[in-house]
Amino acid sequence: MDVVAGLGRVLPADRVLADPDAMRRYLHDEAEWAEYAPAAAVVRPRSTAEVQAVVRFALEHRIAVVPRGAGTGLSGGANALAGCLVVSFEAMDSVLEIDPAERLAVVQPGVVNDDLRAACAERGLWYPPDPASSPWSTIGGNVATNAGGVCCVKYGVTKDYVLGLEVVTGRGDVVRLGRRTAKGVAGYDLCALLVGSEGTLGVITEVTVRLLPRRAAERTIAGYFDSVVAAGEAVSAVAAAGVVPSALELVDRHCLEAVDAWKNMGLSVEANVVLLGRTDTPGDDEAATMLACFEQAGASWAAVSSDEHEAEALFQARRLAYPALERLGPVLTEDVCVPRSKVPEMLARIGKTAAAHDTRIANIAHAGDGNLHPLLITPIGDEDARRRAQAAFEDIIADALDLGGTVTGEHGVGLLKRPGLRRELSEPVLDLHHAVKAALDPSGILNPGKVFSRGTR
Amino acid sequence: MDVVAGLGRVLPADRVLADPDAMRRYLHDEAEWAEYAPAAAVVRPRSTAEVQAVVRFALEHRIAVVPRGAGTGLSGGANALAGCLVVSFEAMDSVLEIDPAERLAVVQPGVVNDDLRAACAERGLWYPPDPASSPWSTIGGNVATNAGGVCCVKYGVTKDYVLGLEVVTGRGDVVRLGRRTAKGVAGYDLCALLVGSEGTLGVITEVTVRLLPRRAAERTIAGYFDSVVAAGEAVSAVAAAGVVPSALELVDRHCLEAVDAWKNMGLSVEANVVLLGRTDTPGDDEAATMLACFEQAGASWAAVSSDEHEAEALFQARRLAYPALERLGPVLTEDVCVPRSKVPEMLARIGKTAAAHDTRIANIAHAGDGNLHPLLITPIGDEDARRRAQAAFEDIIADALDLGGTVTGEHGVGLLKRPGLRRELSEPVLDLHHAVKAALDPSGILNPGKVFSRGTR
Repeated sequence: MDVVAGLGRVLPADRVLADPDAMRRYLHDEAEWAEYAPAAAVVRPRSTAEVQAVVRFALEHRIAVVPRGAGTGLSGGANALAGCLVVSFEAMDSVLEIDPAERLAVVQPGVVNDDLRAACAERGLWYPPDPASSPWSTIGGNVATNAGGVCCVKYGVTKDYVLGLEVVTGRGDVVRLGRRTAKGVAGYDLCALLVGSEGTLGVITEVTVRLLPRRAAERTIAGYFDSVVAAGEAVSAVAAAGVVPSALELVDRHCLEAVDAWKNMGLSVEANVVLLGRTDTPGDDEAATMLACFEQAGASWAAVSSDEHEAEALFQARRLAYPALERLGPVLTEDVCVPRSKVPEMLARIGKTAAAHDTRIANIAHAGDGNLHPLLITPIGDEDARRRAQAAFEDIIADALDLGGTVTGEHGVGLLKRPGLRRELSEPVLDLHHAVKAALDPSGILNPGKVFSRGTR
Repeated sequence: MDVVAGLGRVLPADRVLADPDAMRRYLHDEAEWAEYAPAAAVVRPRSTAEVQAVVRFALEHRIAVVPRGAGTGLSGGANALAGCLVVSFEAMDSVLEIDPAERLAVVQPGVVNDDLRAACAERGLWYPPDPASSPWSTIGGNVATNAGGVCCVKYGVTKDYVLGLEVVTGRGDVVRLGRRTAKGVAGYDLCALLVGSEGTLGVITEVTVRLLPRRAAERTIAGYFDSVVAAGEAVSAVAAAGVVPSALELVDRHCLEAVDAWKNMGLSVEANVVLLGRTDTPGDDEAATMLACFEQAGASWAAVSSDEHEAEALFQARRLAYPALERLGPVLTEDVCVPRSKVPEMLARIGKTAAAHDTRIANIAHAGDGNLHPLLITPIGDEDARRRAQAAFEDIIADALDLGGTVTGEHGVGLLKRPGLRRELSEPVLDLHHAVKAALDPSGILNPGKVFSRGTR
């Protein structure tokens, strides 16, 4: 069957891309070394009805459907499968409604996270989830992966803000899940089930999110530490003091050195580990408490800043770490989450793993959440280094599980964490996953082979 | 088959009750007029293994299993079915662990909500969900119904605090869903799917909840209003001012009169509607803002209280309303939730419904959430009044749906809201519910007929 001709019968012609060059940028996300294959076509629908038409066409012809946001994913979840239809939501990018009285927004899936945040800010409202990809990533992709970010430690992740979804199911129906009211328990929480399901249970066509009022200005508390153990003690001390910071980020020596090599900020001279905390609770108490925690844990330097520019400069090191490391070669991004008290132990084990596999591993961590992002850097074109890095990647997963953690804190399973998922979940839980998948996508057309492999465990 | 003899072969004898008198108090919850029937036996297991033995026994003999917490439910969700096994968790009531560093607790399902809160408070921690039933209701029941409460308006509902569950599935397996880490996206959020599933998808045997640090002391802002419209304007003004109160409760004239008739507090002389707000944000700004909102909306009296006894006295009217009304006859409790800006319109419609059906309807509302609890009172033994009240109950549901609301904000579907659920959800969404139910409980033994009727839509 000629897929493109067939699509032309159910969609306006300009919705369908079939030229291999034009399709190339739609075939994968930003996961290093995750496999992908040529799609039969890329579809750019403009309405829910058009998405439904694509899914029904795919159902009729048993073609895989791969939904796609901005492609900033780091697990391969949006990677194309041979002969599939990639559905890109770039043309469904409208903020449909912002309701200050109900504190909610209704958006199409292609709306960029920062654009929603800006639109909310104009109305005195705030959409908290702030993945590092927020300048590019879309709400649809954020929902599909249950994206996290810096403010999660206090404000939770994407699922905590999704009130309702419009979804095209694997049966080809358009359904509304969830609600617009602040509370509601009518039926199963299928909306929560869809969040984080990585396109395998339904194609999201509209998202209703809960908003918060604009928050008070943040203060930043920065600390330089000689060791990850001392920084870890500072994190534990903050928790023990009863403070939930609005951010608590850790940047290690390898990141600081890479940033210095690029921007000459002189950070790695001062510190082996930088902790960056923030508080948005009114009053000065929390900032003072966090500062005291940093100092008591042995910070070589620590200070509170309420100057926005100064604070931004401090957070630069965290933001620049990833691009600074990418200058050195391909970066394979890990995303394990451990109990927060295990952060120092996990960082120590990552150091041992780096040595054992002769792999350069830098660390950014949402330390307050226990969510670590070891960044594995390999020289361009060095196949042996790549194999060593992949072995290190698996060892990090094993250590995270050993410490009571999870193989993915916020990036999703996609392709890269499928083996990890099988290690993390018991057989009966995997059976439940397959049963739920079969219930919502009986023909198996929705992003097949993602999260778990087709036909295998 | 002799069920009791059969159970005796898989459980110690003292776990099984079969005497009709002893079983009576286990046969229903507090939902007025919801049907129930004699059980074959009541089982009081002491371990997950014993729960699993019961479920496997039930699977083998195709007997319905009805899990049960304290029986404080208001929808009939825990009501016994003819010949079923009621599983009571009264003997599984241990707080297994409170971990201040990770800010989590692990509890057996039979732990009473207030007991968990007290145990957390001893460690400087706080478990927020605070249903009115908290002195009696259990965490297992709270999770099964996704219970709400007074602090939801700022702190969310039970599902926002459930990190992980141990569950016996309808296949007889013991599974762990969710996690102990602060974040995690490994696989589908089956934990969220189980929360609020009212015992129809699995039997909860252990709950891991997220905790918060002890919060700052609350201040109470009380306001007396002449009309629900004025009180509704105060609620809207608070939202527009960017304040998320830690409580915002409405008590109407009928409640005030019933409390006065019982306790002679003189409230109904002063006010037609009382609004009770609370704030726990440090500083005085929010209390001052809420007070100004109350006054600008036309409060005949309004004041901020930071005196705990004074504040408690003000909240007494809210707490006493239900027992005060019960003195007058059986109370059928509604639980609709509408967009918060629709609260005045919904209260006006409830007033019309009361008149049309000649039924006394008092209102308590979590006004900040749009979650209303119309309380329908009928004279004892008056069958005609009961029929009128039931008609009013259905009209209230229809009005809530008409205003974009839901048929149940926090009490669950159980038996009483099954017709409402069919009105609220579309056919394809109901199909998804049945598919998920079949996936997790293929033999249909788990609380069958609750949430949706057996074999029907």
